[in-house]
Amino acid sequence: MTKTDTLLTNAIVLTMDENFHIFEPGAVAIQNDHIKAVGSQSELLSLYEANQIVDCQGKIVMPGLINAHTHVPMALMRGLADDLRLDVWLMGYMMPVEREFVSPEFVHLGTLLSCIELIRSGVTCFADMYYFEEDVAKATAEAGLRAICAQSVLKFPSPDAQYFEESLSSAREYIQRWKGHPLIIPSVAPHAPDTCTEEILRLCSALAVEFDVPLLTHLAETAQEEENSRQEHGMPVIPYVKKQNLFDAKVTAAHCVHVDEGEILTLLHHKVGVAHNPSSNLKLASGFAPVSAMIDAGLNVGIGTDGPASNNDLDMFEEMRLASFIAKAVTYDPTVIPAQTTLTMATIMGAKALHIDHITGSLEPDKRADLIILDISPLHNTPRFRRENHGLYAQIVYAAKSTDVTDVMVNGQWLMRDRQLTTINEAELLKQAENYARIIDTFLIQREQSVLSKLVAIGGATETESFEIQAKARVLDTSPILTAISSPELEILHHRHYHEYDTYFSFENSEQEYLRYREDEYIDEKGQVSNIRYRLTLLGPAREDHFPSDVLLSRSRFIAPATHSLRFYREYFKPSGETFIEKDRLRWRIIFKGTEFYINLDQVTEPDMGYFVEVKSRTWSKRDAEHKAEMGTQLLQFLGASLDKTVTQDYIEIISPKN
Amino acid sequence: MTKTDTLLTNAIVLTMDENFHIFEPGAVAIQNDHIKAVGSQSELLSLYEANQIVDCQGKIVMPGLINAHTHVPMALMRGLADDLRLDVWLMGYMMPVEREFVSPEFVHLGTLLSCIELIRSGVTCFADMYYFEEDVAKATAEAGLRAICAQSVLKFPSPDAQYFEESLSSAREYIQRWKGHPLIIPSVAPHAPDTCTEEILRLCSALAVEFDVPLLTHLAETAQEEENSRQEHGMPVIPYVKKQNLFDAKVTAAHCVHVDEGEILTLLHHKVGVAHNPSSNLKLASGFAPVSAMIDAGLNVGIGTDGPASNNDLDMFEEMRLASFIAKAVTYDPTVIPAQTTLTMATIMGAKALHIDHITGSLEPDKRADLIILDISPLHNTPRFRRENHGLYAQIVYAAKSTDVTDVMVNGQWLMRDRQLTTINEAELLKQAENYARIIDTFLIQREQSVLSKLVAIGGATETESFEIQAKARVLDTSPILTAISSPELEILHHRHYHEYDTYFSFENSEQEYLRYREDEYIDEKGQVSNIRYRLTLLGPAREDHFPSDVLLSRSRFIAPATHSLRFYREYFKPSGETFIEKDRLRWRIIFKGTEFYINLDQVTEPDMGYFVEVKSRTWSKRDAEHKAEMGTQLLQFLGASLDKTVTQDYIEIISPKN
Repeated sequence: MTKTDTLLTNAIVLTMDENFHIFEPGAVAIQNDHIKAVGSQSELLSLYEANQIVDCQGKIVMPGLINAHTHVPMALMRGLADDLRLDVWLMGYMMPVEREFVSPEFVHLGTLLSCIELIRSGVTCFADMYYFEEDVAKATAEAGLRAICAQSVLKFPSPDAQYFEESLSSAREYIQRWKGHPLIIPSVAPHAPDTCTEEILRLCSALAVEFDVPLLTHLAETAQEEENSRQEHGMPVIPYVKKQNLFDAKVTAAHCVHVDEGEILTLLHHKVGVAHNPSSNLKLASGFAPVSAMIDAGLNVGIGTDGPASNNDLDMFEEMRLASFIAKAVTYDPTVIPAQTTLTMATIMGAKALHIDHITGSLEPDKRADLIILDISPLHNTPRFRRENHGLYAQIVYAAKSTDVTDVMVNGQWLMRDRQLTTINEAELLKQAENYARIIDTFLIQREQSVLSKLVAIGGATETESFEIQAKARVLDTSPILTAISSPELEILHHRHYHEYDTYFSFENSEQEYLRYREDEYIDEKGQVSNIRYRLTLLGPAREDHFPSDVLLSRSRFIAPATHSLRFYREYFKPSGETFIEKDRLRWRIIFKGTEFYINLDQVTEPDMGYFVEVKSRTWSKRDAEHKAEMGTQLLQFLGASLDKTVTQDYIEIISPKN
Repeated sequence: MTKTDTLLTNAIVLTMDENFHIFEPGAVAIQNDHIKAVGSQSELLSLYEANQIVDCQGKIVMPGLINAHTHVPMALMRGLADDLRLDVWLMGYMMPVEREFVSPEFVHLGTLLSCIELIRSGVTCFADMYYFEEDVAKATAEAGLRAICAQSVLKFPSPDAQYFEESLSSAREYIQRWKGHPLIIPSVAPHAPDTCTEEILRLCSALAVEFDVPLLTHLAETAQEEENSRQEHGMPVIPYVKKQNLFDAKVTAAHCVHVDEGEILTLLHHKVGVAHNPSSNLKLASGFAPVSAMIDAGLNVGIGTDGPASNNDLDMFEEMRLASFIAKAVTYDPTVIPAQTTLTMATIMGAKALHIDHITGSLEPDKRADLIILDISPLHNTPRFRRENHGLYAQIVYAAKSTDVTDVMVNGQWLMRDRQLTTINEAELLKQAENYARIIDTFLIQREQSVLSKLVAIGGATETESFEIQAKARVLDTSPILTAISSPELEILHHRHYHEYDTYFSFENSEQEYLRYREDEYIDEKGQVSNIRYRLTLLGPAREDHFPSDVLLSRSRFIAPATHSLRFYREYFKPSGETFIEKDRLRWRIIFKGTEFYINLDQVTEPDMGYFVEVKSRTWSKRDAEHKAEMGTQLLQFLGASLDKTVTQDYIEIISPKN
């Protein structure tokens, strides 16, 4: 009799080895951190004498699930914002909150929370990429889980680095410190092709090769990313990153939603593992990854949950079911990705996709003892049909719930026994999580209350505090004005013709505030649209001061180039009202009696309001404003506008008067 | 102070009423079977004096979920067969097992099992259609759940009726007996457009109208059903059933996957409720229902699990999540079907879809007290962001699990308190379920062992025990044979020209058995294919007897018209090997010396084997066989075939010789 530490007996042992051996009743012998033997119960009982015999009571013993792609610290942002467009979600909520809150402490807490959820749901190994990844590694090691922890590198400032050189060098130091750890495989993660430069991709790949560690990244997640790659680099994402030598490293690529047959072969040729994320791809409407085609081609495809902020959980049982379901639906073939294949993806094939199948992913002698015990006796799993083994796989994939996991062992250490966690104090962490949620809530509530701060939050707004005097009058006949402008008393500095489409957002809580989204078509001398400018302007209270002859002083217009679509802003700012105005604008910059003015001759066509003439000039002092108010009145008169036709309101105020 | 039975306090009360009122801390007052008041805790505590005050400890109190489409007795067939084509699954497994096992006892047990799963996962009301539906109703009432129980009617023989008239009349009697029951709404379910006749649709509709009960059915589930409808009736499913007056009744139509805009408007016009079944539609690869378009159009769309044999569970939390996810993915718009809409679909909109929103679906005074308590404190639900109510809906739809349901009340009665069932003894039922699984397993194992019984199981095979004598020889030159056939010594009864494509399935466990799938193209006098016949033939052991000159007696060929595709049979029979043979066959029925024979002149083209001549004749006695063996030898010689070129093997045996 050979001595061993632990013998699991009276189990249905699903090995997930190459031949899908199942032993019932089966047993597993564990010595220290690794599996010593797997086989029938009678055989192992006759061979081994164990310090501890664990009676599995007819439950399933199988390899722990491998979550091939996640961002564990984001557990602290679960449910923060949902049902939004990807760009609104990311740039309007995730990134601002990350900029504000993500710190080593945040990352440590978020990781521990996720580890609890992962252990409870039968995950023994995961692949993570985030900021402050060394703190993810520390917390994961504390929890006792196995993980590939990859330090993110990207071209934008991130919570842990102002410039990419910082994150790259901290990735190097981190990898040096953690290489060889029994649980943690340190790694580097160039974030995605469109959030990295070519240089970042090359340097990250070189770093991973230098230390022989895996490299994690996002590839071909959205149609937009593909489109951008074609436009900017003249080729799709896969050949583009290949050109940057990314595939010199042992790569695991998350998503791969938008890849064609040729690209699948490229991935195969370079032994790239794929992490398929069904929930995330559905919830964020990224598309349907060609999982069946990838598997048929021979790619190793694992299954991931993605981060808990975009899923919104870390439940691999749910992901398995979805992986099968979605593959069947998109191919219109219910035989595709059967349950056995799915469980393979979530175990040994996931390990292959992460390039760690020599360590984990199946119950085989000499592999690390990473396993779970699953109770299939609850009613939602019954009855059990035994005439073919496929029934067992189908039970696990199609009917079992994550809550059926009763015990989890990683590296020979029990992390959960009979649903009790052994390494983490859950209650205390939950309190801390709620505290974070409170301060993030407060931060967002304050921000949501102010349109301005939401404008600033998305980064583009520039605080241009411009004071302007302005006077405006209705015009019935434009020809006298055009004649006056061409008279020698005005010096024309330049002249422009615009066609303007203005959308005004109004807000319930703000009586006098409008946000204007303007598309400014510049019409050239041939009458063609030769350029379009998109601008967001926050229109504050209309007037600061009111001079004789209805000349106004207006101020405080925050202006930002509108880099997103109207739809983005609509969803992000959630206006209570919306008004559209279209106008044709002839604009002159002129000098009148030594003072510079803009003259706008507007024809408001939608709604049909007729013609208006506007004179404007920037000002910075009260004295200057008073002088320009006087000159503006004179200019209006010179242009032939009758002073009893002056208008003190903005077009939007004429259309939708506010009380 | 008004007296009331029960007051639920200290809850987050999600009313799901028209204005989505949420009370926190909120309370619900319950009197007898109905809700008396819903509101803030302080208000209700000041108004009501309760016999029982239930402290909900900060959990969510909300309307119970409504499972809008299921077949509850099929819990006994969960996991019986998965990852198969719909027709293989249905005709190869479900229907044979149903024919064999479904009885009132089976239905009663299956229903109770499902009721446990439904209660545990927070369902208070469901819509069911199956056989022996009165027994479903009895078991459901025992369990204390609310349900619409609809007796299925279809044109095929079913476990509870040989002819549809029987199920229709038992539906009538059942409805008469149960109308007015406090929990059960009896109903009738014409199964689906292509499993019913026009008459069945009309009569079922008339029956539902006569008793003013809802009518349940399946509509537009698969593309095949749509295609069949267009071919057989010249119109899609929706207008076809409308023409049969189906929509005179209060209809709830399950699936509606393949409906266009016009059909959606037809459904809307006739107030048809829709039961969307995300898991089932995915798993069976039926397609993606246009849920977002249906909701936008104003249809009431509920959510269903479909039967536990095709899902494989009854978990409405999973279905809710999927309903949102899938709608986002197929529209490429992550804002579509947000969590609040989904929870509405699973509660009050589901009630509207089932035409019972006056009774249940929301927490409002005078509605029945159908509610659940949900614990959102487990880690997978945390943290909770409170800045907008949407967060609560998102938590429930995207993160909560069915196992978070702690308490369930239906019609004022607790069915589960703190996860303990109050009306059903689970352990005993589980034992009975395992017994059923054993005998079903045995039945299927026995069936699977015999190709013949699988052939018989799918209904089409006819046992034609035909004995044939046959003799065959290789032919180098066909012209002497053709000359001989046209000689006056043969009387030609008829002549045919076929092109035959034969696929032979071979089986590991069967040394001498082949199943042949033959496509017989009949070539007319103009050389055109004028008809194709598909046949399945079970080729038993090749010879029963062997006469001089290599004349054989073969027997026992079970023949069935092949009404399904080759792919169907391949999946259904799971052959271990497959061989393809193509040949051109000239066939004559002749009389030679007073004895009737068939002569086949075959050119085997794939694989290229050259020409063969075959003479065959049916026989029923040994003496007759001996006589015909002698005559056959003479006929072969007469045809010019050399007797040293005789062949005793079938073509398949020449190609793939078996040891």
